[in-house]
This record gives sequence, C-alpha cells and structure tokens, in this order.
Amino acid sequence: MNTLPRTVTGALLTLLERDGVLPGTLSTRVYRAIRAAILDSTLKAGDRLPSTRTLAADLSISRSTAEAAYAQLEDEGYLTRGVGSGSYVSADASAGRHARKSRLNAAASPALSKRGTQIASMGGCVDARVVRAFSAGMPALESFPVEPWQKLLARHARHDASRWMMYGDQQGLPALREAIAQYLSLSRGVHCDASQVIVLTSSQQALGLIAMLMLDDGDPVWLEEPGYRGAQTAFSGGGASIVPVPVDNEGLRVDEGLRLQPRARLAYVTPSHQYPLGVTLSLARRLQLIEWARQSNAWIVEDDYDSEFHYDSRPVSAIHGLDQHERVLYVGTFSKVLFPGLRLAYLVVPRQMVSAFVTARSQVDGHASPLMQAVLADFMQDGHFMAHVRRMRELYRARRDIFMEEIDRHLRGRLVPLAAQGGMQTSCLLADQRLSDQRLAGIAADVGIDLPRLSRLYLGADKRNGFVMGYSALAPADIREGIRALARIL
Amino acid sequence: MNTLPRTVTGALLTLLERDGVLPGTLSTRVYRAIRAAILDSTLKAGDRLPSTRTLAADLSISRSTAEAAYAQLEDEGYLTRGVGSGSYVSADASAGRHARKSRLNAAASPALSKRGTQIASMGGCVDARVVRAFSAGMPALESFPVEPWQKLLARHARHDASRWMMYGDQQGLPALREAIAQYLSLSRGVHCDASQVIVLTSSQQALGLIAMLMLDDGDPVWLEEPGYRGAQTAFSGGGASIVPVPVDNEGLRVDEGLRLQPRARLAYVTPSHQYPLGVTLSLARRLQLIEWARQSNAWIVEDDYDSEFHYDSRPVSAIHGLDQHERVLYVGTFSKVLFPGLRLAYLVVPRQMVSAFVTARSQVDGHASPLMQAVLADFMQDGHFMAHVRRMRELYRARRDIFMEEIDRHLRGRLVPLAAQGGMQTSCLLADQRLSDQRLAGIAADVGIDLPRLSRLYLGADKRNGFVMGYSALAPADIREGIRALARIL
Repeated sequence: MNTLPRTVTGALLTLLERDGVLPGTLSTRVYRAIRAAILDSTLKAGDRLPSTRTLAADLSISRSTAEAAYAQLEDEGYLTRGVGSGSYVSADASAGRHARKSRLNAAASPALSKRGTQIASMGGCVDARVVRAFSAGMPALESFPVEPWQKLLARHARHDASRWMMYGDQQGLPALREAIAQYLSLSRGVHCDASQVIVLTSSQQALGLIAMLMLDDGDPVWLEEPGYRGAQTAFSGGGASIVPVPVDNEGLRVDEGLRLQPRARLAYVTPSHQYPLGVTLSLARRLQLIEWARQSNAWIVEDDYDSEFHYDSRPVSAIHGLDQHERVLYVGTFSKVLFPGLRLAYLVVPRQMVSAFVTARSQVDGHASPLMQAVLADFMQDGHFMAHVRRMRELYRARRDIFMEEIDRHLRGRLVPLAAQGGMQTSCLLADQRLSDQRLAGIAADVGIDLPRLSRLYLGADKRNGFVMGYSALAPADIREGIRALARIL
Repeated sequence: MNTLPRTVTGALLTLLERDGVLPGTLSTRVYRAIRAAILDSTLKAGDRLPSTRTLAADLSISRSTAEAAYAQLEDEGYLTRGVGSGSYVSADASAGRHARKSRLNAAASPALSKRGTQIASMGGCVDARVVRAFSAGMPALESFPVEPWQKLLARHARHDASRWMMYGDQQGLPALREAIAQYLSLSRGVHCDASQVIVLTSSQQALGLIAMLMLDDGDPVWLEEPGYRGAQTAFSGGGASIVPVPVDNEGLRVDEGLRLQPRARLAYVTPSHQYPLGVTLSLARRLQLIEWARQSNAWIVEDDYDSEFHYDSRPVSAIHGLDQHERVLYVGTFSKVLFPGLRLAYLVVPRQMVSAFVTARSQVDGHASPLMQAVLADFMQDGHFMAHVRRMRELYRARRDIFMEEIDRHLRGRLVPLAAQGGMQTSCLLADQRLSDQRLAGIAADVGIDLPRLSRLYLGADKRNGFVMGYSALAPADIREGIRALARIL
C-alpha cells in the first residue's frame, strides 16, 4: 500500500477551487473533491489519506467538517478507516471505479467479473491486529499457556519431520478429530464422532464450503439481523439471496423467518450468545428451528464461535445435540478460545455428507497444517485445553464485571449495555439513538479507541446505533482508562 | 471411513445369484452386483472393498474378472482406488445416488445443492501421502535441510509469541512477500514487487480466488488438454465453461483455442513444463497468448508449479516478465520446492487488483499462518532456500537420468517417455495404445506400484493411454526395483 504524498492536499485544494461554483456545504465539497480524486485515480486503492486533524489544518477547515466528509466517504464505501492506522482508499472504491468505467465505455472490459466486483464490494473480513480498547473478539494472549505449547511444538518439529512435511489427511489429523469430537460431546452436547469432524483453517472456510455444497444461486438464506458480517459475505459470495431475520430477547425470530421466506434453504445462527446482541436462543425457538428444517429439508448452520465463555450459568448445549434429523452443520474455531494465528477450525457434518465436504475441501485448499494439528491434538489430549478454557472463563468474567461497572459509573444514561452473560464483548446501545455510531467511532479512532460499530451489522434499514465492545483482552487498567476516555467523547 | 465387514462378499453372492438370469459376462455381473449394492446403500461412501485378489478367491472367479469389474466401477465413478490402501466406494457414487434418488422422488430434497452435487462429483484433489514408485510431484523430503528449518522454527516460536499468536496480515507477512518478490525477479524473470504478492495456503486456493473474482457463471476458460485436474475443479467449481485446448510440442495451441472459443475470459497454462506432457511453451506461443489476452481483455493464469527444476538448460523465464499489459496472474507454491505440509503458496496479481484479491482472500480464509510465514521468510533471506533448490536440481536430474535409463533398458518398446527436461515426473505413453492405462494401473496398484494415469488428465474423447511417473522422491534402488516390477506387469 502506498502512503499518500503530502502534495495531495494541494490537489484537493485545486479540486475544491474547481468545485467552487457548485452548491453544497463545505463538508460536501470536501467529500466531492476527495471522491473525484478517487474516481479519476489521483487517489488509488490503498492510498492513505491525511488524518482529519491534518486535513483540517491543511485546508483551514474545522475538524468536524473534515470528519463529516470522511464519514460520508466511508459510508459510501470510498474509504476504509482503521483505528490508529488511518484512512485508506478502499478496494470498494477501486471496484466502483471499474464498474463506472465499464458503464462509460462498454468496449473496455472491467478487470473483475460481475461476481468479482460484487465480492470485492462486500468488503473484507477484517480482524483487529493490535490489542486496543475496545476491539471485539480478542483473546487474552498474554494469558495463553505458551510454554507447554512451545514444548509440544518443539517435540513434534524435532521428531516427526517425515509426518509434518508430507501431504496430510484432507479431513484432518485423526488424533485431532478424535480430540475435537470428544470435547464437543462432553462440553457442548454435540452428538458426533471423529468421522464427522472436518478440520479447516478458519470458520470462514467452513461457511464458504457450506455455501459451495448446500446452496445454489439465488437460494434464500436466513441470517440474524443484526448479525455476523462474515456469514453474509460467505453466503452472498456463494450466490445466496440473504433474508435478514430479526432477533429479539429469545434470539432469532423463527416466526418472522417463516413469514419473510419459508422456503429458505438454510438458516445461519449463533445460538449460544447471538452475535452481536448476546442473547441465547431459547429452547422453544431451537425446537421451532429444527422442526422448520425437518419439514422443509432445510439446513441449520450453528456457529458456536465463543460458546466456551458463559459466566453466570452453565452454557446451553448446542442445537446439534437436540436435532434428531441430521439437519445441523456445526461450526467452531480455535481462533477465540486459543489464538487467531493458529489457523485451525472445524466443521461437524451429517455422516452422509462427509465425503462431499472432504472432496470440496480438497478442491479449495488441500488440508490444514499437519504440524499445527499434531500440536493441538496433544495440547487437548494432555488437558491443557480444558484448563485454559476454565482459566479464561474466570479471567473474562472478572473483566466483564469491571467493564460493566465502569460503564455504569461513567457512561450511565449515554451507553446501554445489552445481554452480557457470556462471550468476549458486549454490545452497548447509544441511549440517544439520534447520534451516529459511525461519527462517534471516527472521533474515538482519532484518540486511539476502537469502537466497532453496531449499525454496520444490520443489513436492513432499521439499524440501531451502538458499539460491539470487547473487553476480554484488556487489563483492568486499560478497561478503566478506555471507558474514561470514552466518557470525555460521548 | 468404515471398513467393509467381511460378510459383504456374502451379500454380493446373493446379488450375483439374483442377477443370474440377466445376460452379460461374469465381470459385468460382478460389476452390476457391486453397483446395485452401492445404489441401495448396502455399500456406503467410504466403505472399503476387498482387494481383487480376495474378491476373486471369495467368489471363485479369476483375478482378471474381478479386476475388469473394479476397473469399470472406477471408470464410472463408483469406486476410488488408492495404491496399497485399497478400493473405496467414492463420494461420487454417493452424490450419484442422491441425484438418482431425487430424480426418483422429486419431493425429497437432495442433501446437496445442484452445484454441490456437481462439485462433489468432480472428485477431490488427491495427493499421494506415502512415497512410492511412481507417485508424481513428490519432493525428496529426506534431503530437506530440516535442521536449519527446525532452528528457525524454534527461534520464532520462542521469541515472537505475541506476533504469531495474533491475527496476521491478510495479504501475507511483508518480509515473506519481499523475499518472494525478490526470488521471482531474480530467478523467474517475474516483474513484480512485494505489494503485488499475496501469500496463500495453496496454489489451489489461488485458482479458487481467481475463479471467484475474474469469472462469471458460464465464462469460457481455456485449459490445456491434457492438463492439471486441480485447475479444472477450481474453474468448473467457479461456474466456468471449460474449453480443452490441445497441447503439441510447443505447448498450448493458441490457434486452436482461438478457433474453439476466441471469447474465452481466461487461459490457464503451465508454460515452464506443461503438466503432464512436459513441453515448454515456445516464445512464439507466449507472445501469441499475450496478444490474444491484450486484444480480448482476457487473462492468463501462469501456474509455475515446479519451474525450479530444469535440468538440461536454463529455465525459460515466466510469461509474466514478457507481458507489458498486466494480463498475467502468476501462481506458485512451496509444496513442491520445499514440502507439502508447509501449506504456503503465492499469487502475483496486477497492481490494480491487489485490494480485491486481499478482500476476497479475507472472505474465504482470513490469512496464512504467521509463524510459518516468518520461518519461511528467514529461510529464504538466509539463503537456505536457493541452496536447497540448487541441491534438489542436481539430485532430481540424477534421478531422472536413472529413471530414463531403466525405462530404456527394461521397457523399451512398451513405454515411451515424453519430454523430460525438467520437473519431478515424466509422462510415458503406452506403446500399444490399445492397452488401457486404467487396467494396468489397477494391476500395478495390487503389487504396491502407483501409476498415475495419463488418460484421466484428458477432458475430451481423444485420450492417450500412459502414466505420469514421478521419480524425484525415489532413491536409485527404488527406481530400479520399481521399473523391474513394472516390466513384469506390462
């Protein structure tokens, strides 16, 4: 990625002057100038823009004018704004430019296919790469038992070279599949054996394979509204027609799904604690969902992404264990419960589908790292895994308590936390729903605070403004400091 | 996968008896009995069948009758036959059964979507997992410099935990991208910098991303005939319409491609030494291909899978370096030149497409292992990589020489080796083209010899019978012994 030459503000000034006769507020004019620079390729995908502070100083405009312009550009997909890392011209903008060019000149073929343009315009699945208040879904890596892990890694690296250098089992290392099946049976009430477990590199890969094998173009899919963006990109990318189904305090409203689109082929749910609202799918709804799937030969994709962390009661067992009809595909990942760099996840499928999934998996990406699978299998077998889960459950519970107390102390009446009985983050609504979470997140980003926006996770027009605030990776002092800094902004 | 209970031969006998009144040779009746058992689910996907030897003994039929029945079942996709590991009911059969059921009963929804059924029926990308004469594409793992690798792994594992545990760069570790760009510039004449390199887990993943972003459903794609099956599954899986374009002694016949389908969106080629025929794409054809791509806004996918190994002359530079119009996407992998278990490969794309590819990559699978990328970056930077390439070039050249001598000594007039100036395997035609490579491969498999079939790599009806025979991973004694065993069979 290039860094923008400082002369760009000169170019922007020229554009602003050229635009001088057009109507519009100052922030609209700044927005138009930057957009024009992107569309005529003066600014290219990946170019970094000056901070709103610098831009405001350079153009002699107020900071909030610059902020409003950037917010609109981000909203329309021209900019991607990272916390601390600045604002960049986005891939979407580039794709948009190509689409525009091809409209202008039908003879010139766009670089990407229609599908490619659509996929690029959905944006990527971006995970925070630095621990910061209040990035969501980050494990407390400093508490990971790195020593036993290193020992196991060293042992396998030294003694089993011929095994980890060779092509591996495409379904996954049998010892690891055994360990996963055992863990899921004991801890999550999933009824499966190792022959149904497929080891993958990420839960995103699991969703992609499900889209490939279970859906045809245009097939309707229920997604939770609000919900996980990665599921939307995976299923949209697979050509599905997305049906956002609202979530209430019992989770997915199955009745609404039936009303909106009873012929859906698949429902994607996060029943343990819904992402991002945190509610648990009630037993009645679970049974209703299973009954729907049975009657209409549809599928339930159960994403149990961080179900290990329930703080106030025993976690509810997985839907998988309730289902007598083999309609559930169960997805889990080690990115949250161990560490994201591990690149291991898993999918449990009905017995008659195993070979189709292994075939498709081999077509998209061969198999997962044999060395990392061997290390993880031992880590689980030796009891380190369950011990770590228990320790993290205590640690995250304590952090959640501090987080809730601090919110209550410093942001009462401004931020309203939702269900927080589990997980690694809690969604908080803005008490004043007329405030834009996008704008506030932009301001917070400038002081180094990451506020993942709730409104982004809605697909429909009825969005709520708020933040999906992570606490699991933050030391108590960082939680306190972050909340106080936030209190000064909100 | 289940192992078949021994009583299955009893069930087969019953089926044979029931079938007794139907006409047909004995082998046709055995074929029909097994197929019936698969279709009525007596035999399920993954079930293992008895060896032809055992079946022949159990049913009191000749070995060649059993072999003919198995060959027909394999040909029609009911069985998958692995060397040494036996014969299994294939996923294809299972998919076929579902398709059949759904035809019989339109009310019952098949488990897989239409696309899923098609994807599963293409079969998986299967790589040999045991070194054996004459599996193709296997590096000599015992010659890998495992000690420096282990040292680098131990060093990174010990000191950089916070880095390898976290989410990584979705495009790939910058130090590794630098090392790859430098290597490609120096050794392959690829004109790129690190910002155009995308680190992936496999070249198969690269092909999948290209299909996602560059193709729409039904877009025609030129594939070499015969050619790499993995490319076919990736592009067919992405909805492309495959156009097999014949290969002659100058490589892909661009003129035939233009005649068959001038409006193709993409051409997939292995120009360095064509897989599986081993020829190098001539300069005239390269220029013709680039000119076609430029004129028709089409893309060239250059898969340089084992270009490191040229034995009799300097390797020809990549097409990528010849192309002035940014029409080439360049794919490479470390599976062949280092080891398959590493799970690292790369893709070089035109500058304006980088962000779209990184976005799509994040949607399908996040990023590659940060730890393995860091180890590989150091391994390349410290010079181990190039030293290893040079050593393997010498080793494989010597093995190729022995292989060719042995073929000449023991199989002259029966097997005709094709171009063998590079790579890790050489295709050999059956001198008598009336012989079926499938049948011979089945017989060889029973004595523990793997003969990857050439005829499988043709998509059209005009197939040649032969074998894609690997030698790179075989010690001289194993090459000699394997060729002698083969001489007794052929």
